[in-house]
Amino acid sequence: MTHWKLTLAYDGTAFHGWQIQPGLPTIQGTLSSALHGITGERLLPQGAGRTDTGVHALGQVASFALQASVPAANLLRALNRILPAAIRVVAAEQVSPLFHARHSARGKCYEYRLFERRLRAEPGMPARERLCSPFLAPFVWDCRWPLQVHAMQEAAQALHGTRDFSAMAAGSAAAGDDTASRPNPVKTIHEAEWSRHGELLVFRVRGTGFLHHMVRNIVGTLVDIGRGSLAAADMARILASCDRSQAGPTAPARGLFLVEVLYPDDTSPSPATPDTPAEEVA
Amino acid sequence: MTHWKLTLAYDGTAFHGWQIQPGLPTIQGTLSSALHGITGERLLPQGAGRTDTGVHALGQVASFALQASVPAANLLRALNRILPAAIRVVAAEQVSPLFHARHSARGKCYEYRLFERRLRAEPGMPARERLCSPFLAPFVWDCRWPLQVHAMQEAAQALHGTRDFSAMAAGSAAAGDDTASRPNPVKTIHEAEWSRHGELLVFRVRGTGFLHHMVRNIVGTLVDIGRGSLAAADMARILASCDRSQAGPTAPARGLFLVEVLYPDDTSPSPATPDTPAEEVA
Repeated sequence: MTHWKLTLAYDGTAFHGWQIQPGLPTIQGTLSSALHGITGERLLPQGAGRTDTGVHALGQVASFALQASVPAANLLRALNRILPAAIRVVAAEQVSPLFHARHSARGKCYEYRLFERRLRAEPGMPARERLCSPFLAPFVWDCRWPLQVHAMQEAAQALHGTRDFSAMAAGSAAAGDDTASRPNPVKTIHEAEWSRHGELLVFRVRGTGFLHHMVRNIVGTLVDIGRGSLAAADMARILASCDRSQAGPTAPARGLFLVEVLYPDDTSPSPATPDTPAEEVA
Repeated sequence: MTHWKLTLAYDGTAFHGWQIQPGLPTIQGTLSSALHGITGERLLPQGAGRTDTGVHALGQVASFALQASVPAANLLRALNRILPAAIRVVAAEQVSPLFHARHSARGKCYEYRLFERRLRAEPGMPARERLCSPFLAPFVWDCRWPLQVHAMQEAAQALHGTRDFSAMAAGSAAAGDDTASRPNPVKTIHEAEWSRHGELLVFRVRGTGFLHHMVRNIVGTLVDIGRGSLAAADMARILASCDRSQAGPTAPARGLFLVEVLYPDDTSPSPATPDTPAEEVA
């Protein structure tokens, strides 16, 4: 028995999310089929997080065990040959039998990418409108309001620390990255910041864990603040309410990227990786 | 009656090419539906070139006439509101009734984008293998051979000038950008050059017209030269043969972009455009 950790990048556009579903293309299902094609073994890789339909990944992690013994470099190459171009294995490494992609994770980092269609001009001047390139559209929220980024940045500061994030959880409490049917809504956020990358506004958030839709609900609320429907100071009040109806709408899936999954002792000596991980994005 | 010229950018991945087909998503069909939604008029916009399934455009041109009288800026805005995000109208302008997107065109410019998966290392060293990002994959040929770019560049020089390009035409003579069922195989190429853009190798070709599959067959032949199956000097011989079977394979559609359509007297005073045309690509 060999135990494996795979790091995956994928364009989630054409997939119905991570989790296997009968008759629908999913990342987990596609990976399971590819592993079966290579080893003849039927298994279900466990993901660090169940990304939703249309959500992308730069560093999703999957774990599984194989009967077969195969060098890591060969497994990596064989998977990238058999998987569709929308899913790439960035690294493959043998790990301890105790490693589990979800249970062993100590944190995650997400990015949310937003295209500012209307740039705020001088006060009193109409905002300039830009076109979102069709080649960028599947990977950003093409946001149609001019945004006060400093207000969004100020509000993001209120997210730091440990608290009950129920105000930012999906309506149904059944999901999230916890296994229990009622996930623990108390999470710690270590980083929550906006930055500009070329024509994009990128929100980067890192924490111990995230409830279902939590990042998208945070972004929807921050955008409400950026367009002036809410004030920056409202963020603290909304979080304290633990009431989803106080927060803004859920931002579209296509802007969200699972960037990295963090493990406590990530010192595997020599994972098989290609020379350049596929980190750059459209 | 008002006469219109639209400049379009599109991600061709999800479309069955330009030309309308019953029951299949096409660029022409989608544009026709959008115009019907806005004006109530049924019409078929004429394209400068019939891009194939999976081929992209940064500057496709379409022409049509409307009964309705509508300001250019309004038509542009309404179309970009109603069209899917994969198709953007970059410019809309009223033109003379004599303008026809295909018949009036005097030339076209294409780009072909190629990802070099294996970078040639020092002689005797194995080539390094890189991963093609899943976010780039729909827009490039993920080429699995190390390429001698100087040989491809040398061979591209042989394409310049006026000649019969039958060696680079699709097997079926019925297509291409001419209207006649037997298109004139004599074309003039003014520019044919490789350049590096970050991790991509880009082939840019500009000429008076192109036969069906001509750019993709040229690129397939140049890649055969780059990997050493053919010599750079073979290009002149292949072109002179006027024999498709002498040339290399057809490069995949997904790397091809129609960049620009050239018209003789392109001096329309004030087309409606957004502030930044959507030219940047994944």
